[in-house]
Parts: sequence; structure tokens; C-alpha cells
Amino acid sequence: MTQWVYSFGGGKADGRSEMRELLGGKGANLAEMASLGLPVPPGFTITTEVCTNFYDNARTYPAELKAAVQAALQQIEVETGRKFGDPKAPLLVSVRSGARVSMPGMMDTVLNLGLNDATVAGLAADSGSDRFAWDSYRRFIQMYADVVMGVDHGLFEERIELRKDEKGVYLDTDLDADDWKALTEAFKQIVLEALDTPFPESPEDQLWGAVGAVFQSWQTQRAVTYRRLHEIPESWGTAVNVQAMVFGNMGDTSATGVAFTRDPSTGEKLFYGEFLVNAQGEDVVAGIRTPQSLTIQGREAQGSDLPSMEEAMPEVFGQLLEVQARLERHYRDMQDIEFTVERGRLWMLQTRSGKRTAKAAIRIAVEMAKEGLIGQDEAVLRVDPASLDQLLHPMLDPDAERTLLARGLPASPGAVSGRVSFNADEAEALSLNGEDVILVRIETSPEDIHGMHAARGILTSRGGMTSHAAVVARGMGRPCVAGAGEVRVDYAKGEFRAGGHVIRKGDLVTLDGGQGHIYLGAVPTLKPELSGEFAELMVWADSARKLAVRANAETPTDAETARGFGAEGIGLCRTEHMFFDADRIIAVREMIMADDKAGREAALAKLLPMQRQDFHDLFKIMSGLPVTIRLLDPPLHEFLPHTDDEMAEIARVSGKSMDQIRERAARLTEANPMLGHRGCRLAITYPEIYEMQARAIFEAASALFAETGEAIIPEVMIPLIATKAEIDRMKVLVDRAAAAVAKETGRTVEYMVGTMIELPRAALRAGEIAEAAEFFSFGTNDLTQTTFGLSRDDAASFLDSYIRQGVLEKDPFVSLDQDGVGELIEIAAERGRKTRPGMKLGICGEHGGDPASVEFCHRAGLDYVSCSPFRVPIARLAAGQAALRKS
Amino acid sequence: MTQWVYSFGGGKADGRSEMRELLGGKGANLAEMASLGLPVPPGFTITTEVCTNFYDNARTYPAELKAAVQAALQQIEVETGRKFGDPKAPLLVSVRSGARVSMPGMMDTVLNLGLNDATVAGLAADSGSDRFAWDSYRRFIQMYADVVMGVDHGLFEERIELRKDEKGVYLDTDLDADDWKALTEAFKQIVLEALDTPFPESPEDQLWGAVGAVFQSWQTQRAVTYRRLHEIPESWGTAVNVQAMVFGNMGDTSATGVAFTRDPSTGEKLFYGEFLVNAQGEDVVAGIRTPQSLTIQGREAQGSDLPSMEEAMPEVFGQLLEVQARLERHYRDMQDIEFTVERGRLWMLQTRSGKRTAKAAIRIAVEMAKEGLIGQDEAVLRVDPASLDQLLHPMLDPDAERTLLARGLPASPGAVSGRVSFNADEAEALSLNGEDVILVRIETSPEDIHGMHAARGILTSRGGMTSHAAVVARGMGRPCVAGAGEVRVDYAKGEFRAGGHVIRKGDLVTLDGGQGHIYLGAVPTLKPELSGEFAELMVWADSARKLAVRANAETPTDAETARGFGAEGIGLCRTEHMFFDADRIIAVREMIMADDKAGREAALAKLLPMQRQDFHDLFKIMSGLPVTIRLLDPPLHEFLPHTDDEMAEIARVSGKSMDQIRERAARLTEANPMLGHRGCRLAITYPEIYEMQARAIFEAASALFAETGEAIIPEVMIPLIATKAEIDRMKVLVDRAAAAVAKETGRTVEYMVGTMIELPRAALRAGEIAEAAEFFSFGTNDLTQTTFGLSRDDAASFLDSYIRQGVLEKDPFVSLDQDGVGELIEIAAERGRKTRPGMKLGICGEHGGDPASVEFCHRAGLDYVSCSPFRVPIARLAAGQAALRKS
Repeated sequence: MTQWVYSFGGGKADGRSEMRELLGGKGANLAEMASLGLPVPPGFTITTEVCTNFYDNARTYPAELKAAVQAALQQIEVETGRKFGDPKAPLLVSVRSGARVSMPGMMDTVLNLGLNDATVAGLAADSGSDRFAWDSYRRFIQMYADVVMGVDHGLFEERIELRKDEKGVYLDTDLDADDWKALTEAFKQIVLEALDTPFPESPEDQLWGAVGAVFQSWQTQRAVTYRRLHEIPESWGTAVNVQAMVFGNMGDTSATGVAFTRDPSTGEKLFYGEFLVNAQGEDVVAGIRTPQSLTIQGREAQGSDLPSMEEAMPEVFGQLLEVQARLERHYRDMQDIEFTVERGRLWMLQTRSGKRTAKAAIRIAVEMAKEGLIGQDEAVLRVDPASLDQLLHPMLDPDAERTLLARGLPASPGAVSGRVSFNADEAEALSLNGEDVILVRIETSPEDIHGMHAARGILTSRGGMTSHAAVVARGMGRPCVAGAGEVRVDYAKGEFRAGGHVIRKGDLVTLDGGQGHIYLGAVPTLKPELSGEFAELMVWADSARKLAVRANAETPTDAETARGFGAEGIGLCRTEHMFFDADRIIAVREMIMADDKAGREAALAKLLPMQRQDFHDLFKIMSGLPVTIRLLDPPLHEFLPHTDDEMAEIARVSGKSMDQIRERAARLTEANPMLGHRGCRLAITYPEIYEMQARAIFEAASALFAETGEAIIPEVMIPLIATKAEIDRMKVLVDRAAAAVAKETGRTVEYMVGTMIELPRAALRAGEIAEAAEFFSFGTNDLTQTTFGLSRDDAASFLDSYIRQGVLEKDPFVSLDQDGVGELIEIAAERGRKTRPGMKLGICGEHGGDPASVEFCHRAGLDYVSCSPFRVPIARLAAGQAALRKS
Repeated sequence: MTQWVYSFGGGKADGRSEMRELLGGKGANLAEMASLGLPVPPGFTITTEVCTNFYDNARTYPAELKAAVQAALQQIEVETGRKFGDPKAPLLVSVRSGARVSMPGMMDTVLNLGLNDATVAGLAADSGSDRFAWDSYRRFIQMYADVVMGVDHGLFEERIELRKDEKGVYLDTDLDADDWKALTEAFKQIVLEALDTPFPESPEDQLWGAVGAVFQSWQTQRAVTYRRLHEIPESWGTAVNVQAMVFGNMGDTSATGVAFTRDPSTGEKLFYGEFLVNAQGEDVVAGIRTPQSLTIQGREAQGSDLPSMEEAMPEVFGQLLEVQARLERHYRDMQDIEFTVERGRLWMLQTRSGKRTAKAAIRIAVEMAKEGLIGQDEAVLRVDPASLDQLLHPMLDPDAERTLLARGLPASPGAVSGRVSFNADEAEALSLNGEDVILVRIETSPEDIHGMHAARGILTSRGGMTSHAAVVARGMGRPCVAGAGEVRVDYAKGEFRAGGHVIRKGDLVTLDGGQGHIYLGAVPTLKPELSGEFAELMVWADSARKLAVRANAETPTDAETARGFGAEGIGLCRTEHMFFDADRIIAVREMIMADDKAGREAALAKLLPMQRQDFHDLFKIMSGLPVTIRLLDPPLHEFLPHTDDEMAEIARVSGKSMDQIRERAARLTEANPMLGHRGCRLAITYPEIYEMQARAIFEAASALFAETGEAIIPEVMIPLIATKAEIDRMKVLVDRAAAAVAKETGRTVEYMVGTMIELPRAALRAGEIAEAAEFFSFGTNDLTQTTFGLSRDDAASFLDSYIRQGVLEKDPFVSLDQDGVGELIEIAAERGRKTRPGMKLGICGEHGGDPASVEFCHRAGLDYVSCSPFRVPIARLAAGQAALRKS
């Protein structure tokens, strides 16, 4: 026969913590604590199967349920020496829902169930306080009427206010036992009037009413919606937990508290927590009374006068100390526990893994591994890779006061304060004067690069997570809030408006790039510090890891940062980023604006020595490691001259008229530049561009060999391939440049030619593309754009709404869409490797630094991920975890 | 032992017409004619296997080849009674290449091979003309030295000019036998000087030289490139045909001619052709002498004084008449034949299927089927569907003089003349005055619609085959040349420049939309006429066809046109096209520019009655047929107000300030509108838009039922779905509207909700999308854009170069990319039908009217294609052919 009800308490339990599915999270944990022999108020759990059965059978209970509940209730009575409905020694219980995962919309808690006009006397006698008893009774009616019977909560509050008015008092504490007694009567009247049915007096009716309400709440609109959005099956159902009440507010030998087995903010192995004498759990949370520290050490650290529990209740404290140590050992993790002391007796109400800061998570994981509590692998798995962001960048002091101006996208992490500047040149000048500058733009473009570099942080009012500002800022490690639509920038006036404030040029603001928040003034920040435990954990992660981790980097600084963070090569050197410098962009524009090959070649000749030097420097910094160089893929519009000044400059350099420049710029303007004349398409029409770049690569490699004797093997990567014919032609072009340089220098450079897979067609045709391409690197930014038909620049305006409504779970530009984009990656990997067994596969989109995406890459059998330098540690940890999870 | 050489002649042949692979096209046909017993000059074919063998063996011949050629040559000698190298009765031969398919870059022809200083005398004696003999000899040297020996052709021409100068004459005909004899000597000298080797005197050396030249030419750069681009395998090789010479220029009993077994321009069953007495084939082509008709009827029809062959050579004509009839019967198709009469004896030189006009093709196919020569199925297969465009639209009179101004894309077929106007309002005004107007714009936008409608033709200088101008023009059946980059439009001056001309407002131009040509002035056009045979053929095609053919149509006119052309429903009613009218676009703009739901709803309330009427009209016209309505998918930028006037209008209607309108327009402007906030994304953020449209659909269906009793089953189609969550929400929205209308009207309308599959992600996730979607329609325009990452608006600038360089074979926006986009369609079809067996699948992109794409759709198992009304007949025929080919 199915067991519908599981009892716990008195040092034993029917259930175990592994029975989450059947008992829900809370029920399973209570059972576990009980079977450990810990002091848990006795109770029972009605299983999730009852819920399923209830809905399968037109909302009726299994026939055997009633008797089973009766029996379980009797067990509680035996344990507690009280009886349900007994006016002398009444048993009071709490009723709580308990699904496998916690879920909004579900009925939460009913306390003090079992009180009625008869049993209230028993409670009064027991507690020695009439006021306590009637207050408990009216609370029960209020709560039960609200959550079980659906009576408007406000009606009761009104009545209490009325009573206080009548008495001329302001606080609930000014009401006495008689007041609460009168209100209890009034509350019952409210129920009767509202529902035309009396408030249930019988404890049994009360219990079944509460149990039914829990099960019914499984199908509230809110719960149903939540489940649909979070893909929680209907069939899981919820359990119901019924447990004897204990009271922390029965006088000075009673107390209630919360504790962590280790310091949740530093991770230090110190018992840590707070308690309140003569109080209920909600009083600790409410913050009206100042809680006291549990330990003497804690009290001293706080400089508090109030006695610690260690001093005030040494005996019970001793028990608690033992219990917490036992719980941590048992669960092999830092625990967040709740307890109540009822007249000198300790009761454990809850234990669960405690939330902690990233810093604490690392220390706890590493120390627990050293203590032998967990293995090194498990320590690696214990730390959320995404949380490392906190450690690698300054963060806002959590205790600092702050005024939020607006929210945007968390485009590049870190917190920073500085003076607002709306202009890149000015930002640079101010920065040279020693000012900390926040560059504020509607959006950024290549000509802002010097200003972005000079600024401490960047704020834009338009653009997504992969907009120019966001990508460049992440690359530079500058905090950035992008696409803050609430920020209205007025360049002309030199101000922006947000959150009802007007911020002028030179005013101080603070950005939290990890949260996407913009604050008024300078909010104090905390410096990042990388602990010894961090380094240890990374070594453990690396030893498990199968995926290599490379960095996306173009500048020597980025490359050095990346190497410092443990990058194993460069997976993506975006050569167009090398062209953004003020002295180069003119030559690039000149090239783009040229009408003929001769004009382009003249401009390219100016760029060749710069490119050669660029590559030479990168090869040198990444000595011994692979470097993948992507040939030019300019989003054309980013390079077009826009202002008259810019056009005049090109006109001057190229010897053309302004009209000619203007006409050419207009002709080059595209309706959808993302889908336009870019990537290898430029090189099909103007091969001389890639010819110059390939030459620069081989000349640099050749020169470096001459200097150092190191034979760099450059990986030349062709962007935006859609067809085999394109890669065939590009390979010929690169091979020709290599041969020409070899002939000139007398030195043959080994190299590989590969391609980005960033278009759905390339993924589908990977089999034939791999005939020419020697490696693939998945450009998941563009692949996401085209697979979804969604521009990363334009999505910001509605993506928010999509995520809020649950149409999309996550921004697919942040975390890889594994179902759609992921399938294309799998298809391409399979087809590519079928043609070219063992070919090298990597990913170099923004997703390379996202833990879930890294795990996907591991499962898909890629060889490496490449991400921005500051995300390299995150990728290393995520890759280590992926390997551990899979094996 | 391999047979390397195949002989033909004397009423028999080793080969047959099925042996194309081995003998090449020409060789196989000559063999076939010979075995039919037709008078073919005897000869032999060296097989393609010799070519393959040649290249496999370092360019050497199989050992047995020499003897085999020798034997075959002897057979010719026996047949002709002449001998190779015999000074009395010399055998002369032609040598021609003959691959399976004709191919540029291959050696073409050497005539008169076998002539030398000795045999020239025999030819002179035989022909009775020294001049003829020496002229033939020098031609042979000239031709052989050029194509076999590689001596510059110009050197010989110069020497002839020199000779004429010396004699003071101007024409070759003024040179006599002595002149040609002297020139022959001189030519040999040229060869000696150029190559340091004498011109070969031995006929055998000559022959092997020519054979070698054919085989070598298989690997010329041009031939190699051509094969690569056309995917012709290297391994095919070429054959060599060696054939006895016959001369049509041996006096008045000799002649040469070409003929068609039926009239190639009308298809009428009339023997049709021309001949010249005492002439060689090239004289007929050269057009110096006026050719004579073959038949009396032909002579009379031309009003010619020159006697027909029927009159001049009645006996030979009789033989020819018999031969041509026999050839047509044998090949079961209209033949294009070449013949020579040598001194009263008929020789057949060539027969092949004749090229014909679309009109002729249809008549011939239908009549041959009626004659029992071919089956009805074969008749259907005989007509190129794409050629029907000629019949459905006016075309340029092929005989008319014309001056080409520029070329653009053939965006919408038909030829039309009119006066240039640069402005939609003006175009409309002129048209109301009875003028034929050609609207010329850089590109068109929705506010030009009335002008496009009023114009006879449309010319744009920017945009691709699926630009706004192109799509709208095809929908309206207006000829359109789009993206004519050579046309420089200057609105301010009211003129455009092209081909060195300046065309001002009001000047006459002619567009050929089927070719993409723009001509100066008014070029005469021919009206389309649909023959009875056309209708018959379409019935036969329909009876074979499995795919249904629907039309993309929004207006009553389009819908009626479509029905007239046999459309079986509407596959795509683009509701945004219904909003382009001047009186509606303001309401649409008002809706887009509204900041809140109330503002949008106010604007939508104005649109609801118009939409309802639209749908009502469409349902009525398409009575009994399905109508698929796509809810709004505005490329947002097409609707934004651009000019101050347009903004002022919106400001007036919505009661906002110009600044507010300007700011909102700026905020709505997107970097990549194709990948922006469009399709169902609009309805996720602003559901009220689709709510209005769904309501209009159901109200219209309900009203029509009340009027006529016909129960329309609307197919409601949601655009731009990428995720299951989107279609889930959209279906709820439509269902809710249906339920609301049902409640209000008391009448439940049956309907289907489906989706466009136009994003790669939707294709991949089709399995789960089909849980909500009841049908799929492949939006291959967008699917092509996203699969290739290629904007149809921007591709024009480089697609040309892609196709010219052979990187792409065809514009993927015109003919479906079956490998890439096609695979996504197959994936989606399979996954969709796995979830929902038998679900209805269609295609509604521009590809629905492209024959190759229609065939793909048939193979992919779709249920229907939908195309612009004027392409419906093309799609019907293509679908019929696809079914016949597959079965």
C-alpha cells in the first residue's frame, strides 16, 4: 500500500534527505535532521503523490489518507504530550507547503493551528500569559482566514486600527489581552460576514482546510505560470508539512535565532549568527529589536554591549554549537540554520546550504577540501564561475549609501566613480589631468576609442550586450553600463537626465557594470583581491579541464592581461579593432572610400607596417601559444565618416572633393550593415585588403623567427564564410601571400587557414567548407544574430520585455541558445570533423566566458573557448566543472 | 579491346545518339543520322575515353589509336572514292571538338584539312576553279596556324590587306587565284618565321596536329574555369570528330542552308528555312548575300523575288523535305538542321533540337502531343516555365531599334514606355491626365505606393530583387527595373544620368523589366497573347501537378488577377501592404509613434473597419479557396515618418509636439531593421495590434457567412517566430479574439493558426513550434537573408560580383539555395510533421514563382507554393513538370 504520510521527530523519521521528490525540500530536510537525532519539533509530511492523486481524481484524497494523518497526528501527540483540541494541553501545529523547489504563488504558512475558544485557555495557562494566548489566537485566525479561506487581509488590519483609535494608542504592543480577545471575536465575525460561514472551531476541520489550501494553491494562476516559465512539470506536485509549534517568545528562557556554520562573507571557519531572547522568528527578520551575537568573539568583533548567546545561555549554546558542527559535517557544506529555544530547550527548525559571497565560496570550498570534508573535484564544483566577476573587479561597498539614477545592461563588470564627460577628446584631456572620467554617450563608435581608453567607465543609453561600447569595454576591462534607455543624453546641453536628476558635465556618478546600475555621486567601492585559495582552486579546475581557454585580444595590454589570467593563446584577434586608433582610422576610411584598387592599395600600404608591428607584438607576448587572427570584418558603418570634419579629413588625405566623399559615403551606407558588405565579402570584391593583412602576418612571423628563433604558427581566420567557393578563394589568397613572403624572406612560415562559423549556412555546409578550412571557430555573436534573425544592437528595445514575460529565459547574446544555435554548432562540428577528422574547433563569441555556454562547448566536443581577458578565470573554472560533471 | 574510334557514313554507324558520353553531342548525332540512312558525309569520332586516357598517361595516346584512326580514314576513303594526300582525288576533312555539352575555350573547327601544295591541284581540277582551290588552301593554313599552331591570327589578315593595297582593290572577292596562291606561300612563310618550323605538308601530320590541339584545348584556362563554374567534371573529356568535307560553293548546283522543321517563332507546322546557292555555311551566317527561302510559301510570305529552293532545286528540295520530316519524327522534337548541296547531292551536316520562342514552344508541344508524336506529359515537360513570362507581359518588339541607357535587375517583367517622373504625387497627377508615367526613384517606400500604382513602370537605382520596389511592382504586375546602379538620380535637378545621357522629368524612356534594361525614348512593344494551346498545356500540367499553387496578394485587383491565372487560394496576404495607402499610413504611423497602449488602441480603432473590409473583400473574391493572412510584419523603418511634412501630419493627428514625434522616431530607428523589432516581436510587446487584426479577420469571416452562407476558414499566420514561447502566446491571442467575436456574433468561425518559418531557429525548432502551429509557410526571403547573413537590400552592391566570379551560381533571392536554405526547409518539414502528421506546408517567398525552387518544394513534400499573381502560370507548369520528373 502506498505510504501517503511520513512522520518525523523524537530522534527518528520515515523519510530521508534524498526523498525530495516525494517529501519536497522542506519535508526531506526535517526528516533528515530528525533521523540524525537532532531536536526537531515532531511532525509529518503528506507526500507529493497525494497532490498528484488529488488532481488525478477530481480533487479528492486517497481513501486511506484520513487514517494515516490521524495516526501521524497521534504520534505527535505522543511525542509532545499534548492533544489536538485538548483545552488543557493543546497541540498546536504549523502547516506549510513544500514542493521540490520553492515556488511563488504557493500557500506558504499557517501557524498556531489548533487554537479555538477552548484551547486558547490551555495556551494561556501553559505560557502563563493571557495576552500571548489571545494574540496567538487572533494571529491564527487572521492568517488562516487570509490564506486558507481567502478573506481580504485588509479587513482585519482595519479592525485593529479601529481598536487602537478607540483606546487612543498607536502600537500593537499597547493592546492588552482583553483587546486581543475582543478582536478575536471581531475577526470571527468578519469571516462569518464575508463568507456566510463561521470560522472553523474544530482543530481537525482547521487542519484539513489548511491541507486542502496547500494542494489547491498548486494550481493558482501564479503557480501555473511560474511552472510553465520555469519548465517545472505539473506532475511534480507539492507536499504538505504539519509540525508541532514551538515558541521562542515564552519568556526569558526562550529565544530564536539564525546562524551560519562559517562566515558567509569571508568564508572563515567561525560559527556566526544572531539571536533574540523572548522573540519569534519574524522578530529577528523585522529588525525592530537589535539581535545579539551568538558568540563572544562575534560580540567583541561588533563591539556590542548585549550579551552573546554563549554568555546568556551557555548550556543551550553548547548544544547548538554541537548541532551546527554536526550538520555541516553531515551535509558537507556550510549551513544556514534556524532554531528556537522554548523555555530552555533547543529546537531546530531549518537547515540548508548557506548563501555566501564569491570570496567566501572559494575559501570554504578550498578549506573544506583541505579538511577532507569534500574532495578537490567537489570543491571545484562548489564555486559558481559567474561569481568570480566579483573578485576580478572592484565592487560597490555593500554597506555604502547610494541613490540609483537608472538601470541599464550589465555590459562590463566592475564598479567605478568619476566625472561625467560626453566627449571622447575631452575625456582624454581630463584623464591626462588626473581626473577619473565616466564617458557618457548615446552609443560609441570607433572614433571614441581613445576616450573609452582614457575613461574609467563607460555609460551608453543605446545598444545591447554586444554593442560596440560593450564589446570594447569588456576587452579593455572597463566597467560599462550599456543601453540604459532611461538615461536621456543631451549633447548640446552637456547633460543627461535620469531618475528625476539632471547630471551635468563634470558631475560625479558611479557605475556598477556588473549590475548595470548608475548611481548619483561617488559611491565607495571595494578593491578586488585574489586570495591564495583562488589560485589553488584554479589549479584544481585546470587539472580537470579538457577545454583550452584562450582570450579575445588585440592590444598588447589585453594580451598581457589575458596571459596573466591564464589564457592559453589568442582565439580571436579582431583586426578591425586594431584600426580604431585615431592615426589609423583615417587610412582605413581612405581605403573604404577609395573608388578603385589603386586608391585602396595606397591606403593599405600605409596600414601594412602598422599591422606587421601589431602582429609581431602579439606573437611575442603570446610566445609558445597559438594566435588566431581574424582578417578584417568591419561593420562598414562603424568606419564611415559621419561628421563634416571627418569627411574633410578624408577629402584632404585622398585628394577628393567633399561632394565626392559625401556621395561615396552615401553609396556605402547600408540598410542592414550586419547583413551587408562585410567579412570575406569585402575580400571577394577587394582582395587587396586581405592580401595586405596576410602579408603582414607572414612578415611578422618571419621577422620574429629571425629575432628569437621561435617558429610561430599563425592561425589565419576568414570571417563570414557562407559558401565553399568563398573559403576556396580566400585560402588561395592567403596561400599566395604566404608563398610570396616565403620567397622574399627565404623562410617558409607554417600556418593554418580556418574560418569563423557564424552563419547558419556555414554551419550546415561545414562538411564542404572543411575541405578548405583547417579549423573552425564558432562566432556565436553573429550566429545568434542570424539564427534568431535578431540584431544585437536593436534587440535591447524589446529583449527586456521578452525576458520579463518569460518568452526567452536568458538573453541569447549572453548565454548560448543551446537548442537552436547550439544545434547548428553540433551539426557543424560533426560535419566538419567528418571531412577533416580531429579538426580544431573553438568558440570565440561573447559566450566563451559564460559558464553555461562553456559547459555546452565541452559537451559538444570543442577544443577551446575564447573570451575577453577578464573572463578567462571564469571560463577556466566553468570548463573544469564541465569536465567534472560529464565524467 | 577498347574501341577508341567510331565510324559513321554510308548508311551505317558504329555509334548511336545515346552514346553522348562516349562520342560527345556532335559525334553521337552524326552517328545517329548516318544509321538512319541519311546522307551524312562519312567520318569518324575519336572517343572521349581517348581524351581521359591522354591526360592519365602524360599526354600520350593509347597504343592502338594510330591504327584505328588509319582504318577509319580508309573507310572514309572507300566511301568517298578519294584518298588522303592523293593529288588527283584528294580527301579533305574537317576536324571538330565534341564534348558532351558545348563549352567555350575548346578548339572549335579546322576545315579543308588535307590540302597541301600537291593536293590543291586535285581540288582545283575537281572543282574546276583554281581560285576556289587556292582560296580554300590559304583558309586552311590560316585556320590551322591559328587554332592548332597558335600563330597570331592578325598576321595573316595584315598580309591580305597588304595584297589588296598593292593591287588597289578593296574586297577579298577582287583577289584572284594568283593572289591567293601568292598569299598561301606568304602564309607558310609567316608560320615558319613565327615558329621556326614549317607548316606541315603531310595530311597525316596535319590530322594528328589537329586532333592533339582538340585534346590539349580541354585543359586551356578558359575551359578549366568554365568547367569549374559549371561543375562539369574533368573526367568527362572531349571527343574529336573527323569528317569528309563537302562544298556548297562548287557552282550553281551547290548550295548550303539551315532549316527548322517548324516555325521557331510561332510554332506553326511549316518547313521553314533559308539557303544560298554556291555558298558555304559561313556565308549564310555572314549576311552579305540575302538568303532565299526554302519553300514557295516562305518566299511568298516574305514577298521575295528570289526563287525558293522548292523552285530552284526541286529534286533536292524533295529529298530535304523528306529528311526533315524523318528527323523530326525520329527525334520527336522540332529540329534545327544544317545541310549542304554539293553539285546536286544533298548532305546533312547537323541536326539538333531547335531553339524557339515561348509561344512556339507551347504550340509545338501541344500540337506534337495531338499528332501523337509525344505524350501529353512530355508536352508539359517541353516548355520552360520561366519562358512564360514572355507571354504574360508585353515585350519589346525584337525588330525595333533601341538605345540602351543602363542595366539594372530584372525586378518585375514586362516592357513599357512612358514619361519620367521623380515624384509619386506628380506621377499620380500625370497619370490622371492620361499620361503613361515611369516612376524613377533612388528607392521606393510605402509613401510612394500611390505613385507606383499610377505609374506604368518603375525604375530604382538602389535595392535588390526583393526590395520594396521590386516586391510591390511584381505584386501589381508593373514592369520594374531595380537597383540600376549606373543610373544617377538627382531629385533636386529633376533628372537622371545614365549611359552618357541626361534624362529630364517628362522625357520618354522604355523599361524592359524582364531583362532589367532601360532604353532611351519609346521602344515599340508587342502585346501579350495567351493562345488556346497555352490553356490546354496548363490543363495537362495541372493534371500532373501535386503541389497546389496559391498567390501572394492583398488587393482585390491582385486577388482577381491571381484567380484569373489559376491561383488556388491566397498563400500570403501581407497585411502591412494594406497599410500603405495614403489614408491609412497616417493611422499606422500614429500607432507606431504612440507612447502607450491607449494611443496605439486609438489608432488601431481607426484601422479596424478598414481591415475588416479588406478581409471581407478578399474572402469574397477567393470564395471556396483558402486564404492565409499574415499578421503585421512591418519593416519598421518603412513606416516611420521621415520628412517634416510627414512628422507634422502625425503631430497633428496625435496631438503631440514635433519634438516628441522627432524623438520617438529617432528612438524607433534601428541599426538593422531586418533583424529588429518586427513580426511577432511587435505583438509580444504590443499585443493590441494583432488583437485588432485577428478581430478584423473573424468579424469579416462572420459577416461573409451572414451574407452568403459561405464558411470561410481563415488561415491566420504569425510572422517571424523564433521560439515556441512566441507562437504559444500568439495562438492564445488569436484564440481569444476568435472566442470574443464568436461571443459577440453568436457564430463560431473555424480557423487555423500557423506560422511563417523564416528564421533558421524556427526551422530547427519546428518540432516544438508545430505543437502550437497548425501549418507552416516557409518565408524563404527572410530565411535566405538569415541563413546567408545577407540583406536583400544591401546585397545588390556585391552580389553581381559574386555571380560574375562564380562564387554564387545564382542569386539566392531569385532561386532557392537548395543546399543551405533548402536543408533548413527539409529539417523543418520533417520535424514539423513528426509532431503534427500531415500538417500543411507551403512556401510563400519570392521563390514560389521560380521553377527550380518549385521543383525543390515538390521534392521536399510541401503542399503548395505561393507566388505573385503573374507567376502563377509559371508555378503551375513548374509544379506539373516536377511531378512528372519525379514519377
